[in-house]
Amino acid sequence: MTASLSSRFAAEFIGTAFLVAAVVGSGIMGERLAGGNVAIALLANTIATGAALVALILTFGPISGAHLNPAVTLADAIERGIPWREAPMYMAAQFAGGIFGAVLAHLMFGMHWYSFSTHVRSGWPLVFSEFVATIGLLSVIWGSTRTKPNATPFAVAAYITSAYWFTASTSFANPAVTVARALSDTFAGIRAADVPLFLIAQIAGALVGTFLFRWLVPGLRASANVVLVAHESAKPGE
Amino acid sequence: MTASLSSRFAAEFIGTAFLVAAVVGSGIMGERLAGGNVAIALLANTIATGAALVALILTFGPISGAHLNPAVTLADAIERGIPWREAPMYMAAQFAGGIFGAVLAHLMFGMHWYSFSTHVRSGWPLVFSEFVATIGLLSVIWGSTRTKPNATPFAVAAYITSAYWFTASTSFANPAVTVARALSDTFAGIRAADVPLFLIAQIAGALVGTFLFRWLVPGLRASANVVLVAHESAKPGE
Amino acid sequence: MTASLSSRFAAEFIGTAFLVAAVVGSGIMGERLAGGNVAIALLANTIATGAALVALILTFGPISGAHLNPAVTLADAIERGIPWREAPMYMAAQFAGGIFGAVLAHLMFGMHWYSFSTHVRSGWPLVFSEFVATIGLLSVIWGSTRTKPNATPFAVAAYITSAYWFTASTSFANPAVTVARALSDTFAGIRAADVPLFLIAQIAGALVGTFLFRWLVPGLRASANVVLVAHESAKPGE
Amino acid sequence: MTASLSSRFAAEFIGTAFLVAAVVGSGIMGERLAGGNVAIALLANTIATGAALVALILTFGPISGAHLNPAVTLADAIERGIPWREAPMYMAAQFAGGIFGAVLAHLMFGMHWYSFSTHVRSGWPLVFSEFVATIGLLSVIWGSTRTKPNATPFAVAAYITSAYWFTASTSFANPAVTVARALSDTFAGIRAADVPLFLIAQIAGALVGTFLFRWLVPGLRASANVVLVAHESAKPGE
Repeated sequence: MTASLSSRFAAEFIGTAFLVAAVVGSGIMGERLAGGNVAIALLANTIATGAALVALILTFGPISGAHLNPAVTLADAIERGIPWREAPMYMAAQFAGGIFGAVLAHLMFGMHWYSFSTHVRSGWPLVFSEFVATIGLLSVIWGSTRTKPNATPFAVAAYITSAYWFTASTSFANPAVTVARALSDTFAGIRAADVPLFLIAQIAGALVGTFLFRWLVPGLRASANVVLVAHESAKPGE
Repeated sequence: MTASLSSRFAAEFIGTAFLVAAVVGSGIMGERLAGGNVAIALLANTIATGAALVALILTFGPISGAHLNPAVTLADAIERGIPWREAPMYMAAQFAGGIFGAVLAHLMFGMHWYSFSTHVRSGWPLVFSEFVATIGLLSVIWGSTRTKPNATPFAVAAYITSAYWFTASTSFANPAVTVARALSDTFAGIRAADVPLFLIAQIAGALVGTFLFRWLVPGLRASANVVLVAHESAKPGE
Repeated sequence: MTASLSSRFAAEFIGTAFLVAAVVGSGIMGERLAGGNVAIALLANTIATGAALVALILTFGPISGAHLNPAVTLADAIERGIPWREAPMYMAAQFAGGIFGAVLAHLMFGMHWYSFSTHVRSGWPLVFSEFVATIGLLSVIWGSTRTKPNATPFAVAAYITSAYWFTASTSFANPAVTVARALSDTFAGIRAADVPLFLIAQIAGALVGTFLFRWLVPGLRASANVVLVAHESAKPGE
Repeated sequence: MTASLSSRFAAEFIGTAFLVAAVVGSGIMGERLAGGNVAIALLANTIATGAALVALILTFGPISGAHLNPAVTLADAIERGIPWREAPMYMAAQFAGGIFGAVLAHLMFGMHWYSFSTHVRSGWPLVFSEFVATIGLLSVIWGSTRTKPNATPFAVAAYITSAYWFTASTSFANPAVTVARALSDTFAGIRAADVPLFLIAQIAGALVGTFLFRWLVPGLRASANVVLVAHESAKPGE
């Protein structure tokens, strides 16, 4: 049985919405409660984000693959997983879902439904961090999907949990999440002016991670249609 | 072999009791030790609750499905998982078990066996938070049960771990737990006056989450008799 | 292939030694670094103990079952899992291993190899906590071993992680660990005078948890020879 | 299909680089944000390291086994897993990757690309800690790989998470990581003068852990070619 296109787009929309709501919402809660200790706020933000990824990939993966990330959809299209004609709708659903998720978080915390972030995240170290972070994310996806598909939701969540701390940018590694976070003047926000370089670094990182694994694992394309999770649109041998 | 009705009701009672004991008890311990830093207390509360859910769903799931939540039982009955005639007893066991769990927690910490909470949790943002939280919970259950049943205990626990932080209400998302927490004037408590709107929001969220997945996944009912975990009362093809 | 008796006793000895070293050692480190915030010290202690249980049960489970706990061995013998004639040696290995683990922890932190704890843990709430904690532990073991054996290491570790916070006693739930902790005048210690009631409560809890599950799940004995993990001494149909 | 030698060396290089980047980077971030509370910084460092191990072993394990550690490669060669002729290249890739990872972390945080650590880690308790930590690590690898290979990435990550706290040395347990950390004058660094005894203790611990399991589990060698993860160079019956 194949999930319909509309179900798959809806899954990407809802999944990305919950992902951004988790990122933004837990940032608000963490900062409110942490009494000024940024490490404790980020620890809460990290645990909430990592746990959300486990839940959301297990939930929406079987429908749409749970990309929840335009950089992942781009990489999967390059490897001929998702057909190119579907990729723009996946990405549109992710961007729209991400923005909707930021609005959800604001409403749950009784704030105005949007606000433009003033959180400065500039400088080459942060751009380089996003580049490295996204290389790593795509490596984890390509490396684990192929032979350990049941572990992929845990591998991706664990990677982001770690990368929140080992990159100077707290590892956005996701263009849809980055744009949505620009609309939230809270702990997890990013100033609009800093978004473009983040997006470029993320796309470059996704390409490098994908080509790296194409070289490391020659038969990579055979697994591209089950990224991130074997789902109902994936046909064996396609 | 099918678990008897009395075993299944007992499993829901004991499981919900341990769940509420974990929520209330870890709240007491967290608040006592955290030296006034609410984020650290909530972090302890979160970890204890998420870990308890992993353990309890793996333990009681094979007997009763480990709903431990009247909103889940309602949704499962709507989808013709659990028969309607059994649903009231499931719910009664969950409410009674939850109250028993709060009493257990109080006795373990040397407190009076009950106290009426004075913890104000009012306002539309919190009600909206419960609505969103329960949509998400039912989405995770319906989404993961169908194709990843072995991962469902981890998906549900991860979701609640995250939702403690990304909702303004700390995501009760469970009518039996909500009522029990009204009987505990501690960190995890909720003032009785705030309970009714929480319950309405939770039930509405459970319905929306269920109908959302009925649309997303047309064959959903085929998996309703194994919510949350394939259990001995579940007959294939029933 | 069956693991020899000496291998199995050695596995219980080494496994319990590492478990106690993790409990005591992480308590020392947590207290040293936490700057007086007991919640942070206990959080470190909790994470180290839960993670150690995952690793140790996966490591030693296939050899001896990884009971690492005389209360578990007692319950398993009652259910005719481990033969009664082997139980005393299992328990002796656990007690000796636990003491050895406390010594290891002290030597790793440059302290005298033993010290008598002065940490008072008295009063009925704490004794009742140990009773409840051990009922829960045996419930998790009996409930998950039978149908989800691959998840048992995670279920047990998650349960203890949670119970550290939801019981007033921080859930020792293990006679060998309790005795070993009496020999460590550190964060995780317990005054010798408080040990006997802890042990009685733990044994009573183990019996109640076991009989509870014998009633809940009539066919329980069929799974007793694979507690906690299917291991090489377990013969089908024995 | 067998992964080529160059792919496997590259996997060890990249995997160790990300591991060290996670260790060093999260140490920098943790110390910057924790406001002087070392326990909170170490908690962040611990979570980032443990989560990185889950992701990296699942990612690179299917290619090279994901040793990421010369002590593991040595032990595997002794048990005739990896051929002796390949071991030096594995180790060279790990040492080079580790140093590259430290450089990556520094560049991501806008620091000079290397610095010599002044972090004193001397004294017999720390050396003894490394010895015990590496015995434990090899025990976990040999114990879990044989019968629970799908759980090995989680077992290893959980062990290191725990050992960060229960050893006085924060459990380096890895010669390549130790050397790389000497090149980082940050939270995770180690003074060059303290490196040699750490390396000796780690190698001794790896040998003891391996011989211990050779005695505990007579058929150990049969699983040596799938350390840590069944990978494409592993031929059944080799």
